[in-house]
Amino acid sequence: MSERIAVVGVGRMGANMARRLQEAGYSVTAVYDARMDAAEALAKELNCANPLKLEDVTALADVVITVVTDDKSMEAIFGLKGDSLLKGAAGRVFINCATVSPATHVEIEKRARKVKAASLEACMASSINQARAGTLYLMVGGDAKVYERVKPLLSALSDGGKLLRYIGRSGQAAQVKALVNMVMNINTAGLAEGLGLGSALGLDLKVLMEVFSQTGANSRVLATDGEDMVNRDHSCFFSASHAAKDSGIAYALGQQAKLELPLAKAALAQYRKMVKLGIGELDKSGVAELTFKGRGPKKKAKVKGSSR
Amino acid sequence: MSERIAVVGVGRMGANMARRLQEAGYSVTAVYDARMDAAEALAKELNCANPLKLEDVTALADVVITVVTDDKSMEAIFGLKGDSLLKGAAGRVFINCATVSPATHVEIEKRARKVKAASLEACMASSINQARAGTLYLMVGGDAKVYERVKPLLSALSDGGKLLRYIGRSGQAAQVKALVNMVMNINTAGLAEGLGLGSALGLDLKVLMEVFSQTGANSRVLATDGEDMVNRDHSCFFSASHAAKDSGIAYALGQQAKLELPLAKAALAQYRKMVKLGIGELDKSGVAELTFKGRGPKKKAKVKGSSR
Repeated sequence: MSERIAVVGVGRMGANMARRLQEAGYSVTAVYDARMDAAEALAKELNCANPLKLEDVTALADVVITVVTDDKSMEAIFGLKGDSLLKGAAGRVFINCATVSPATHVEIEKRARKVKAASLEACMASSINQARAGTLYLMVGGDAKVYERVKPLLSALSDGGKLLRYIGRSGQAAQVKALVNMVMNINTAGLAEGLGLGSALGLDLKVLMEVFSQTGANSRVLATDGEDMVNRDHSCFFSASHAAKDSGIAYALGQQAKLELPLAKAALAQYRKMVKLGIGELDKSGVAELTFKGRGPKKKAKVKGSSR
Repeated sequence: MSERIAVVGVGRMGANMARRLQEAGYSVTAVYDARMDAAEALAKELNCANPLKLEDVTALADVVITVVTDDKSMEAIFGLKGDSLLKGAAGRVFINCATVSPATHVEIEKRARKVKAASLEACMASSINQARAGTLYLMVGGDAKVYERVKPLLSALSDGGKLLRYIGRSGQAAQVKALVNMVMNINTAGLAEGLGLGSALGLDLKVLMEVFSQTGANSRVLATDGEDMVNRDHSCFFSASHAAKDSGIAYALGQQAKLELPLAKAALAQYRKMVKLGIGELDKSGVAELTFKGRGPKKKAKVKGSSR
C-alpha cells in the first residue's frame, strides 16, 4: 500500500476508480485529464496533485492507471515524442483500462519495455457504480509477473479479486473485452427490436418482458436495459458512442480474420447511426429510439442525470 | 379427466405431449400425422386409434391438440373443403400449439366458431424434454372462457400451470412467441459470431464463455447453446429451419408495422442460409457452422441422435 498511484483519464470510470483506491487505503498522488477542469476538481476532492504535464504524473507515481477514450488517446499519452507518460518511466507499471484495440496494448507494452517500465491491460466489463464500489469485473492481459506485482491493487478494484481474471498475454484481454461488448451490443440491439415490435403490435410490454425473462430470449441486457427501453430512460451508464467504438474494434478483428459477422455488423451500424443522429451520448439502451414507433432524435427522450 | 384427447401432428413435440397427457391420466383416444407411419407407431405405443381421416379424429375426441409445422399445415388440417378437423366439430375445442402466423390463429378461431367449435393457441417456448416432462412454457391466446375450460389439461403440460401464461386475445400469444424466438435467434446467431471470432483469435473458448456468463454478454442461449457451438454438437432440439420460419414470422410482422429491424433481418438471413446450404435440420446452435473457420456444410458436423 506504500505504492503511489496516479490516474490518467478521470471521466465517469477513472474518477470513481481513484476514489475507490483512496478509500481502500492507497495513496493516490496525482490525477490527470485532457479536460483540465475535471482533473482539477478531482484533485481537490482527493487532496492530490493534478500536474499539467504527463511526465510529471509519471514522476509522482509508481503505478499509473489509464482510463482514456480510444486508441488515439492512448497514442497521445504514451507518445514517443514530446510530453509523455513514458518519460522517466523506468520501474513504473502502467495499467491500461480503456477499451482500445488489442494491437494498441501490444504496442504500448513494447514501448514501456523499451524505457524499462511495464504495462498491463486491465479491461473492465462493468460500469460506473461498480467502479465506485470496487466491484469491477477486470480482465487482465500482459506479463504474468507484472500481474502478480499489482494484483493487490487490482483486487481492491474487483471485489477483493473475486471478479479478477488473468486472461493471457498482452492484447488477449482486450480481445475478450471486445467480444464481450460485441455480443452485448448485439443482444441489446436485438432486444430493442423485440420490444419495439411488441410495442407496435400493442402488446403489454411488462408481460412481454416477463415472458422473455423466462424463455430462450432471456439475457443480461434484458435485466439491465429492458425497463429503460420501455420507459425511455436513457441516462448514460455506457454510451451508444462507446458501444459503437467497441463493436467497431471487434468487427475489425473479424475482418482481419476474414470472418463474416452479419449480426455484429448490423449492431455496429445501429450504434453508428445513433452517433450520426446526434444521440450517441445516450446510454446503449437508447438504441430503442431507433426501433420504437414515434421515437427518435427529434422526439426527445427522457434523460435523467448527466450524460457524462 | 373424462375428456377424450386427440393429438394431430406427432413429431418430436406432439408425440411427447401425447405421452405426457396419457401419463397424467388423460384419455388419449387418437393420434394423427401426415406421415402415417409416425402416427401408427405412436398409436401402438399409446394403445389408441390412428384414423386416416381428420374428420374421424374429430369424431373420436373432445379436445384436439394440434402441433403441426407451419401455416400451410394449419390450412391443410383446418380446410374449409374436403377432409378437415372442422367436420362434425360442434362442441370441440382445438388447441393449436405450432408456431404459426398470428393471423392464422385468428382465422382458425373464426372458422371454428362457424361450426360451433372453439379454438385456442397455446404457443410453446420450450423443447422436447419439457414436452415429455410436462414442463412446457405455454403462452395462451384466445377466448378467456375457452381457456378456463381447458386449463386443467394445459396445466398438466406446464408444470401444474406454473409455466402457463394467458396472454390475451387470439393471435397475441403467437405474436409474443414470434418475438421470443426472434430475440432468441438474434442472441444465438450473435453468440455464434462471438465464439467463432474468439476461436479465430486463438482464445481459450472455455474462459471466453465463462467471461461471457459473468458480464453483459450473458444470455439464456449461452447456457443452452454455447458448449454445443464449441463442441460442434448440433443434435436437434430446435432446428435451424424452425428458427428460420419463426424469425420469418416476426420479421413479417415488423414489415407490416413498417419497422426497421436490422438485427432480426440478419439473424433471419443466417438461418435461411443454413436451410439453403442443406444444414437446416441441425439444431439452431448449428448457426456456428457459418461463423467458425473451417466449418460449414461440406465439413461434416458431429450430429448426435436423429435430426427429427
